[in-house]
Amino acid sequence: MRKGKTFIICGPSGVGKGTVVARLLASDPTLYFSVSATTRPPRAGEENGVHYHFLSREQFEQWIAAGDFLEYAEYVGNLYGTPCRYVDQAMEQGRDVLLDIEIQGAELVHQKRPDTVRIYVAPPSWAELERRLVGRGTEDMEKVRSRLARGREEFAAARNFDYFVINDTVDHAVGELRAIMLAEHCRPCERISLISQ
Amino acid sequence: MRKGKTFIICGPSGVGKGTVVARLLASDPTLYFSVSATTRPPRAGEENGVHYHFLSREQFEQWIAAGDFLEYAEYVGNLYGTPCRYVDQAMEQGRDVLLDIEIQGAELVHQKRPDTVRIYVAPPSWAELERRLVGRGTEDMEKVRSRLARGREEFAAARNFDYFVINDTVDHAVGELRAIMLAEHCRPCERISLISQ
Repeated sequence: MRKGKTFIICGPSGVGKGTVVARLLASDPTLYFSVSATTRPPRAGEENGVHYHFLSREQFEQWIAAGDFLEYAEYVGNLYGTPCRYVDQAMEQGRDVLLDIEIQGAELVHQKRPDTVRIYVAPPSWAELERRLVGRGTEDMEKVRSRLARGREEFAAARNFDYFVINDTVDHAVGELRAIMLAEHCRPCERISLISQ
Repeated sequence: MRKGKTFIICGPSGVGKGTVVARLLASDPTLYFSVSATTRPPRAGEENGVHYHFLSREQFEQWIAAGDFLEYAEYVGNLYGTPCRYVDQAMEQGRDVLLDIEIQGAELVHQKRPDTVRIYVAPPSWAELERRLVGRGTEDMEKVRSRLARGREEFAAARNFDYFVINDTVDHAVGELRAIMLAEHCRPCERISLISQ
């Protein structure tokens, strides 16, 4: 059986990454979407193991000490991280893994595991991203501008990513993601053992 | 408009590359299948520009001198080569190009143009390749053995290729080839200019 691979999906706020990932997961039930761990207390309706793995700070720090995170970071006084164990379990079962994380986390994971594939989901243009952010109507213009500025900064950092998928339409973006995932399973390192006999 | 890319398809005799390539071409009429040039005289039914570009030795040597070949080689007294001009024309028109060439030629093309993608079409196993070669019934066992030995040698040389596609079924192999071609158009170098505005 082929082993699973890990695919990191990054992209600016407002690009529609959530929709694309949801469609991808719906189209292939074998995919495993990595659930983060956090020390933040659960909000109403949040389930342990579904929305987050909720850990005490002590537990989280034990996991850090044991090398049990692919990446982690502190944000507004709470720790957030990607536990190795569920990712590794899924890959051993032959399932591909999706990580929806920040660019900084992507770099950390890629340093630790260079065979992880990094995909940046980009808007068709920055003007279009602005339209989408404004169209959501959930944020004032100042917040929209700060999100756009952060998006452009991250975009510069994503230049060494493996792939850029442009989310002009969800169908198009999902098609490209599926192609990338299949193509990456055709790399020689995965295939040579199959045909050496 | 996106520019086309060149994909080299290599694989051992008997692996079914011809069938796979024919299906790929039938499924996408924008693909350009590179026609080789040769100094070998045309056989009955062979058309210039369709089966080969038939050149005199003098013309062929002029093209060599002008750097008009991506790769060429002499074989049993005749010259064979891949002319740049048709490949470049097709790519400028946004068409992807397929090159069905030998491993040695693949190396020459890749040295000249590192953005060329090298794909090796492999049998599910060497035993299966032997069954297919014997099943064709066109060659005696000595020839089959020599083809197998050559296939194994070439396989060793193909380890640094970009992708391995296993031709267990034609559908499967064509699906992987299409995925690879789409994924390679999602490389950052092709995409960054689209979203920098």
